[in-house]
Amino acid sequence: MTSLAPHPDRLLPADPAELRIARELYAEVADAPILSPHGHVDAGLLVADEAFADPAALLVTPDHYVLRLLHAVGVPLESLGVRPTPGAGAAEPSSGREIWRTLASHWHTFLGTPVRYWFETELHDVFGLTEQPSAENADEQYDALAAALARPEMRPRALFDRFRIEVLATTDDPVSDLSAHAALRDDPSFTGRVVPTFRADRYFDPSSAGWAEAVARLGEVAGVDTSTHAGLLDALRARREHFLRHGATATDTGVPDAGSEPLDAAAAEAIHVRALRDPASISPAEAVAYRHTMLFQSAAMAADDGLVMQLHPGVLRNHHRPTFERFGPDTGHDLPLVSSTYTEPLRPMLEAFGTQPRFRLVLFTVDETLFSREIAPLAGFYPSVYAGAPWWFIDTPSAIRRYREAVTDSVGFTKTSGFIDDTRAFCSIPARHDMSRRVDAGYLASLVATHQISEDDALRVARDLVDAIPRATFRL
Amino acid sequence: MTSLAPHPDRLLPADPAELRIARELYAEVADAPILSPHGHVDAGLLVADEAFADPAALLVTPDHYVLRLLHAVGVPLESLGVRPTPGAGAAEPSSGREIWRTLASHWHTFLGTPVRYWFETELHDVFGLTEQPSAENADEQYDALAAALARPEMRPRALFDRFRIEVLATTDDPVSDLSAHAALRDDPSFTGRVVPTFRADRYFDPSSAGWAEAVARLGEVAGVDTSTHAGLLDALRARREHFLRHGATATDTGVPDAGSEPLDAAAAEAIHVRALRDPASISPAEAVAYRHTMLFQSAAMAADDGLVMQLHPGVLRNHHRPTFERFGPDTGHDLPLVSSTYTEPLRPMLEAFGTQPRFRLVLFTVDETLFSREIAPLAGFYPSVYAGAPWWFIDTPSAIRRYREAVTDSVGFTKTSGFIDDTRAFCSIPARHDMSRRVDAGYLASLVATHQISEDDALRVARDLVDAIPRATFRL
Amino acid sequence: MTSLAPHPDRLLPADPAELRIARELYAEVADAPILSPHGHVDAGLLVADEAFADPAALLVTPDHYVLRLLHAVGVPLESLGVRPTPGAGAAEPSSGREIWRTLASHWHTFLGTPVRYWFETELHDVFGLTEQPSAENADEQYDALAAALARPEMRPRALFDRFRIEVLATTDDPVSDLSAHAALRDDPSFTGRVVPTFRADRYFDPSSAGWAEAVARLGEVAGVDTSTHAGLLDALRARREHFLRHGATATDTGVPDAGSEPLDAAAAEAIHVRALRDPASISPAEAVAYRHTMLFQSAAMAADDGLVMQLHPGVLRNHHRPTFERFGPDTGHDLPLVSSTYTEPLRPMLEAFGTQPRFRLVLFTVDETLFSREIAPLAGFYPSVYAGAPWWFIDTPSAIRRYREAVTDSVGFTKTSGFIDDTRAFCSIPARHDMSRRVDAGYLASLVATHQISEDDALRVARDLVDAIPRATFRL
Repeated sequence: MTSLAPHPDRLLPADPAELRIARELYAEVADAPILSPHGHVDAGLLVADEAFADPAALLVTPDHYVLRLLHAVGVPLESLGVRPTPGAGAAEPSSGREIWRTLASHWHTFLGTPVRYWFETELHDVFGLTEQPSAENADEQYDALAAALARPEMRPRALFDRFRIEVLATTDDPVSDLSAHAALRDDPSFTGRVVPTFRADRYFDPSSAGWAEAVARLGEVAGVDTSTHAGLLDALRARREHFLRHGATATDTGVPDAGSEPLDAAAAEAIHVRALRDPASISPAEAVAYRHTMLFQSAAMAADDGLVMQLHPGVLRNHHRPTFERFGPDTGHDLPLVSSTYTEPLRPMLEAFGTQPRFRLVLFTVDETLFSREIAPLAGFYPSVYAGAPWWFIDTPSAIRRYREAVTDSVGFTKTSGFIDDTRAFCSIPARHDMSRRVDAGYLASLVATHQISEDDALRVARDLVDAIPRATFRL
Repeated sequence: MTSLAPHPDRLLPADPAELRIARELYAEVADAPILSPHGHVDAGLLVADEAFADPAALLVTPDHYVLRLLHAVGVPLESLGVRPTPGAGAAEPSSGREIWRTLASHWHTFLGTPVRYWFETELHDVFGLTEQPSAENADEQYDALAAALARPEMRPRALFDRFRIEVLATTDDPVSDLSAHAALRDDPSFTGRVVPTFRADRYFDPSSAGWAEAVARLGEVAGVDTSTHAGLLDALRARREHFLRHGATATDTGVPDAGSEPLDAAAAEAIHVRALRDPASISPAEAVAYRHTMLFQSAAMAADDGLVMQLHPGVLRNHHRPTFERFGPDTGHDLPLVSSTYTEPLRPMLEAFGTQPRFRLVLFTVDETLFSREIAPLAGFYPSVYAGAPWWFIDTPSAIRRYREAVTDSVGFTKTSGFIDDTRAFCSIPARHDMSRRVDAGYLASLVATHQISEDDALRVARDLVDAIPRATFRL
Repeated sequence: MTSLAPHPDRLLPADPAELRIARELYAEVADAPILSPHGHVDAGLLVADEAFADPAALLVTPDHYVLRLLHAVGVPLESLGVRPTPGAGAAEPSSGREIWRTLASHWHTFLGTPVRYWFETELHDVFGLTEQPSAENADEQYDALAAALARPEMRPRALFDRFRIEVLATTDDPVSDLSAHAALRDDPSFTGRVVPTFRADRYFDPSSAGWAEAVARLGEVAGVDTSTHAGLLDALRARREHFLRHGATATDTGVPDAGSEPLDAAAAEAIHVRALRDPASISPAEAVAYRHTMLFQSAAMAADDGLVMQLHPGVLRNHHRPTFERFGPDTGHDLPLVSSTYTEPLRPMLEAFGTQPRFRLVLFTVDETLFSREIAPLAGFYPSVYAGAPWWFIDTPSAIRRYREAVTDSVGFTKTSGFIDDTRAFCSIPARHDMSRRVDAGYLASLVATHQISEDDALRVARDLVDAIPRATFRL
């Protein structure tokens, strides 16, 4: 057996002088409450507050970070509990125990990755395990995890408190009634803050499958006729109001590119109407032009209602069609697109709203080259633009460090977003925030050790990065 | 109050062994004369040699690095002394004292940026301040600065000597008579060397506003008929001669992209003549083709007269039209363009002139990805090509370090340009060169500490980087 | 004179704690056998096993890494022994001694580059030199090198054993009879393993010079009619079989871009037939479409016969036409192309074969931005995809470190390729592998020192990186 004992100094600098400083900085924020302004946990989980059913269903199957690495070394998704979509062929359902055995026997695959880091921290801190998973101890650990999950202190709300989560933002469809958020808000026994995030990009592309149905349904929910482009915009405005009333402070938008040049109203109307009637007639160029218009109009709404606009262009969804057809989306094969660019495509949006006081735009990327070339320079001029923390593929210790080195030079700390965990894996939230706090402590320590900033300033910044900065950026 | 006392070891490595070596290397060059082969100080400043009027007008308003960071946290440009262009509406002029208060109360914004580094060094070393600026001490510091500026030893020529500037290159329009440079050269009481740099890119794009007027005026000054493309080239050749006679050793060229495929003479003539007669008829493709031709022809002139060609493609000017319309250019919203490329676009130029002995091309970039992928490989084959130091947005400690790590592997040190300060802020020149010397000392120390080069070799390179290398690169 | 004494700790970390760990890790692999799965040494060299003729002809003239750096500081290729192509004008042939003098007098040019590192290691370890080359000792060192080369223990086979090469892969044209490989295999006195690699990209582009002749010749050698596209594919299949019978485990493919969308059979046939009859009629778009088809079909063959597919898009050959016309290819002016992309272009290939068990694709790049943005994410989902080690321009200490930092976060170690030396310079093989082993030891030590992985795990990974990992990746 190999011991599982996360070191108190892990991820802090090796150099003794930097380590001393980094320890002090980290100690200042190690137990600070968690502000999680961007994630994918289901609010219903906290309403129901039921015991988690099974270790594998909690820790393996829903986490596409874990799925993709195991798939990459040849483990079929079926063996990890991923269900084929209806009609895509029968599958032997693997039991939770079998899934855990598969994970445990591939434990070495994760070595050196943040997935291993999060997982180790989680198994140790949340579940109290003290051995690294292995083929030998898989059954024993599975039983221990299952037993732990049956205990009342492992229910969602108890963990919410234990994790010291102060704010948790979910991601929600505009048609959601947000009843779970309302229930939590109205429940005097739950003192946490769970806020919805408005994610409307499925209404942007009139050539995408199911667009017409989604637009019609949105109209019903909003009580607005969405058979026109103006109606769609009105419906979105109405739903943003609904989200605001339920505590939302932000929207989230994922698009293939950052283009924001709007069509004039008549041209947008023409495409809208034709897309409803004859979707096949919409050319790729028309679909793109309509999507760019929708991005521009979303910014207009944000400049008006003050919901912070989170934007993350540049991800290609469902790269491997056979996997998509068999298992559906979010199964590990979304991939970064070719080098994207923001500076020129965002120009129409920023010329219109970039200096308006209520408008705020947080730019995320999976292409690190944008940090020094585009995101930091944009955040270094426009009062509305913030440099989002590294996200998804680059939410890793060395990429977070590279982000700080690339961005601080251009815009310091106040125009960065603070950490976002972006996770579906509820139990990994503390480990993810902890990783970020350690890396930031190390970075700040290096600035102090090279006499670029004072230790007092570093302490203040370390605190701000987990508190004042995300609070201000996301208007929490 | 917080002490302002730049640490003697700032920016040097934290590791004790590396620090010891870096200190020795830095000591060797800390007081070396400054060669400033690329900058934007006005030569007339040194001719007039008058006391600087006001601390804010000297240190804040003309420095777009400072403006943009303050603007990014919500400070209006008006409050920083930027004057609206005529007709763009009245503005309350802020006094120098008010501007300084604004700067001081946002001092924390600069934390971690090179702007803060330069500013701290400058306030301490040049002006003798010993406290960090703050809202509390703003008035007192403003008075101290104003009093300092009134002293004779703070006049431009005295500072020129005190800064140990050996060569200062300015940037000048081809129509400039260079009388300031002549006056300085002929003034026996001024022993410094101030050389002009020929910057002609405003004549490259026949679709740009004011092109015809500029071309006509150039013809007048050169005494050459510029109603033809051949005439324009002749006029530029004549003005290059004029610059050479006034001590110029280099030209500077900023273009959106590095394309250098020339049109044949007839096609270029046709565009030229039509652009003078009917500018609106010039298509974007024609404008680009003409501009590429001008870049090629500039290289041809450089291969002939030996003026070193500095090239920096990839900046998008005046990103925010409303700011441009209100305040004009150089007000903080020039931004790096999408990932540019040099290898293929420069091929026509390099096939024609790349191995000619008098031709020399220094490539600058604001896109760091080009250092290892394009610039170093080009400089590693073509005898004429040099890898320019990080510039503008990436003139920062961590980017300079990344530049060295990316470029040294491919081409060592002799094909790099040496540091350029590129500044309009006269008093920041020593701080900028000092920053570069420290970072280079740290980089060389890391090579010594890991036994990649000897300490003797490192000492030689450290000296060459501030002396022999820029002197050779820019033919000073 | 300056001593040439490579330090035992060179390239290992400066930090004492990291150094201690790195030393242990490096000691574990310093003397491990060399697996060289990708290179350009001629197998005939080992068959003939004759003494190397001349130090310059061995160490300078054939090494384009050396040529390009000397050319970049103004040394004409003629002075380095490069022969003009027939008809390109007479040249004074430089003697080996003169070439060595030229190299020695420019020795400082290489400072800080890996070329210097390899060269120093080679001169010291292989040839026993103890002084840095210089103009002063050039003749003496030349004589010492020449005398060394005359000794029996400096013949190719003796060096092969002394270098502890276990497997050496060569790169071969499909028409090669591989008689040298057969001779080595059948020679009981030679116990090494020398395997061919199938490189077929010269048959991909029907618009390239000499394509029709090459295709016809391939048909003759394969005994297959290649006047059709189907025939060309059959001929390639037949030659892959031939390579497999001679021990090949992999193919190698260099293409301008990674496009893999196949034409249907009829369209491919039409282009093929027309290209044979009237090459000038093939449009650039047709040539590209045909080339993409060939890449797709190569993957199909690989999925079938299990030869590992190595792919390296993104190099622009022969950038400087005048040099090409005078000296031919491989003379230092191949250059990285503009930022390439893999994710979208490889989609057709990966949708078809990405999860097939016999298919394996090793992706190399000369554009570092792809490591974190595209290569690691692809290798982190597709079981068939491996992240190739940094190659060519980025086969350097700091780029190898950046590669590890970029790739490990996403996919750990098991989906990386292991080091490849890619060299034509036989005597540099040990120095190149040694460099990689040292850098990897330093990287692993940093993970241990920051408590991200245990020392035991680091030891296991260090061993795997030079043994199990390349063995598995290349199916050795």
